[in-house]
Amino acid sequence: DMAVRHYTLDINLSTPVDSASVVPGLLSIFHEQELSETIHDTNGHGYLATFVGKNGRLVVLRVHSHGLLTIDLQCHEDDDIAQLDNVSDQKLPALVRGAKVDRYWPTADGRLVEYDVDEVVYEEDSAYQNIKILHSRQYGNILVLDGDVNLAESDLAYTQAITGNGRENYAGKEVLILGGGDGGILAELVKQKPKMVTMKVIDGCKMYMRRTCGNTLDTLRGDCYQILIEDCVPLLKKYVQEGRTFDYVINDLTAIPISTSPEEDSMWEFLRLILDLSVRVLHPKGKYFTQGNSVNLKEALSLYEEQLGKLSCPVDFQKEVVCVPSYLEQWVFYTAWKK
Amino acid sequence: DMAVRHYTLDINLSTPVDSASVVPGLLSIFHEQELSETIHDTNGHGYLATFVGKNGRLVVLRVHSHGLLTIDLQCHEDDDIAQLDNVSDQKLPALVRGAKVDRYWPTADGRLVEYDVDEVVYEEDSAYQNIKILHSRQYGNILVLDGDVNLAESDLAYTQAITGNGRENYAGKEVLILGGGDGGILAELVKQKPKMVTMKVIDGCKMYMRRTCGNTLDTLRGDCYQILIEDCVPLLKKYVQEGRTFDYVINDLTAIPISTSPEEDSMWEFLRLILDLSVRVLHPKGKYFTQGNSVNLKEALSLYEEQLGKLSCPVDFQKEVVCVPSYLEQWVFYTAWKK
Repeated sequence: DMAVRHYTLDINLSTPVDSASVVPGLLSIFHEQELSETIHDTNGHGYLATFVGKNGRLVVLRVHSHGLLTIDLQCHEDDDIAQLDNVSDQKLPALVRGAKVDRYWPTADGRLVEYDVDEVVYEEDSAYQNIKILHSRQYGNILVLDGDVNLAESDLAYTQAITGNGRENYAGKEVLILGGGDGGILAELVKQKPKMVTMKVIDGCKMYMRRTCGNTLDTLRGDCYQILIEDCVPLLKKYVQEGRTFDYVINDLTAIPISTSPEEDSMWEFLRLILDLSVRVLHPKGKYFTQGNSVNLKEALSLYEEQLGKLSCPVDFQKEVVCVPSYLEQWVFYTAWKK
Repeated sequence: DMAVRHYTLDINLSTPVDSASVVPGLLSIFHEQELSETIHDTNGHGYLATFVGKNGRLVVLRVHSHGLLTIDLQCHEDDDIAQLDNVSDQKLPALVRGAKVDRYWPTADGRLVEYDVDEVVYEEDSAYQNIKILHSRQYGNILVLDGDVNLAESDLAYTQAITGNGRENYAGKEVLILGGGDGGILAELVKQKPKMVTMKVIDGCKMYMRRTCGNTLDTLRGDCYQILIEDCVPLLKKYVQEGRTFDYVINDLTAIPISTSPEEDSMWEFLRLILDLSVRVLHPKGKYFTQGNSVNLKEALSLYEEQLGKLSCPVDFQKEVVCVPSYLEQWVFYTAWKK
């Protein structure tokens, strides 16, 4: 693995003293290391020097005219840069760039976060999406779909939230799960002996998410469940035609789209279609559970709530904010029921 | 705020085709923007070019000899770099450097994580530590001590874990809290009407962590608690001399030190002293609760468990891994009791 470590160090030079003492001090460190220096013309935008070392090290030293000193230090992973450790207390953990296993999986609300992943356990490009299962030291295996953290073995909190957080009794109930390919919901609900239908299983989970799915994905039919490998929409339409209803519909297909142009976006169109059909197959006293998105995506969540007000069958809803361990952000879940 | 945005883009040039097409394409983008180019001599360590723009933009384009292309793009926060958005899908959220409010508070296990903090609510340098209270959109106010995320208003899970996760009955019990200056433990326990002593209150929390502490920090004495502004060690020694015991001792002073040379480190010495005194004031059937550290710091946790085996009074212990929302990592909590 020939990854590159990229350290960033930022110092606010609040007084002229800082500037007069810090910069020459840094320069002398870089000169000692026999880095070849280039001083750049910045057109009056402060001071900029780059240093290149024999072993491929690169240092970018910049003093912005408003007094911010930034240092970038790039070196190969096996290069020892211990002698630069004393430069600043304000040094962040290095960005690791170009590593075989990517550690950066930004949150839904767009923050940069690093995971402790050490291995890609499974990877496949299906017709629908890129599927990865990554191993994290603290979260166990993590299912990542198209770059979004979907569920980790640590995330029982997700499964509990999308099944009503222990407030429901599923014994003998008719339950329809849309999505849920990781098997987490199924594994929890079968403990309560409901009747159940589920669909669209992701192969990798059966093998690598066993702390989540147990043995429920090993066969397509169990005592109280069947797994259908079908598209959701035709199946829901068939149930509507047959007049079949469910006590619970659990939609685990996808998070609310982040885009905020619901009139144009095909993701929103799909969401509305599934939502409408789901509510139509819901028993009059039934409950519809689904995930929302990051609590910070207020606009997308409002749009979703607007959609809930536009269904062919009027519904009420409530929401709950839950901490799902591997998400590194607070997540909103919805419960809806017929008025 | 004159912060600098720093975008990083990394592309693995797996085939010569990539290299032949990607690099000239990028160069033409940078040339169009009238950036002045410097090509550096890398002593055979691949290709390196830097580009400086009139408005202070800086681009560093590097092709490492093993085929990794890294691009760094720095610009002022108010500079529009939308035209570079199409360069790569593999672009991470920008590092924001030199901002008034720092968004990066690395985890205890050394990972780079960005918080959604938008305001420094309170800041003070006490004789002991730097105290900050930051506002997060999703976690509420966050108490940060010497750069470590300590507790957020979202973190009832922490308070529950360090008080036994609902398995204890505190009614009428003698409880000693060491630390707990944020008031979270006190606020939870007074609901159960114990007798209680606590110490060392951090002033800022009273005002800015009210979702955590309620009104318990407003007065130094309540119906069932008193707050002592004293050092722990002399107080514990006095209790030992008096033969006073407690049903529960809750040590919320500090996490386990990360350093792994417990023979030399004064933090470990302090920890051992407090631990020993705490167990000595514990009722024979009492329980000692404390936080550990990140579940990933296995060596530090093992060392702590070694210390538990060396006390003047032998103890047994168990541990529990808990997700504290604002920590962005799994956290270990300990319960110990006299053998």
